[in-house]
Amino acid sequence: MFGLIGKMRAQPGQRDALIAILLESTGGMPGCLSYVVARDEGEEDAIWITEVWDGEDSHKASLSLPQVQAAIARARPLIAGFDSRIRTVPAGGAGLAG
Amino acid sequence: MFGLIGKMRAQPGQRDALIAILLESTGGMPGCLSYVVARDEGEEDAIWITEVWDGEDSHKASLSLPQVQAAIARARPLIAGFDSRIRTVPAGGAGLAG
Repeated sequence: MFGLIGKMRAQPGQRDALIAILLESTGGMPGCLSYVVARDEGEEDAIWITEVWDGEDSHKASLSLPQVQAAIARARPLIAGFDSRIRTVPAGGAGLAG
Repeated sequence: MFGLIGKMRAQPGQRDALIAILLESTGGMPGCLSYVVARDEGEEDAIWITEVWDGEDSHKASLSLPQVQAAIARARPLIAGFDSRIRTVPAGGAGLAG
């Protein structure tokens, strides 16, 4: 399995709108075992996205999906920056589809 | 919902053993919507645990479950340290049970 833990910052006041866009495209991504979008509890504009894929290829392929491309285009102006991007190798757990 | 993103370090050479213990107790935790244990791809001894609960109360209650108490006791000698513990408010996503 392939995993990502990423932190991004929304433009001031745009976190909820950005989260809404991100959540619209999380369904129907082949090979996606988990994709969670969360607000940082302490940092007002920060968003965490934690992902688990059956492999890195599935993740790369998802970036070409029409709904994901559309979401990226709509989300880009609401993003202030990317703070961290951690690559992981998930070993297992609860709530992993497939 | 309530979420946690935590990074811990295993004692040298003990990551796989620690992950095995952590995974044994991830089933049957009331209110747990997602619990993923993953190796950091870059850091040899580092482990990431990403969690989503239906509320912080469920997470707290889980710490008293017999299987979790037993896992914590067995895991403790294999843990070298805790690097980060981020509290989140999950908004949604794919692969969330319940």
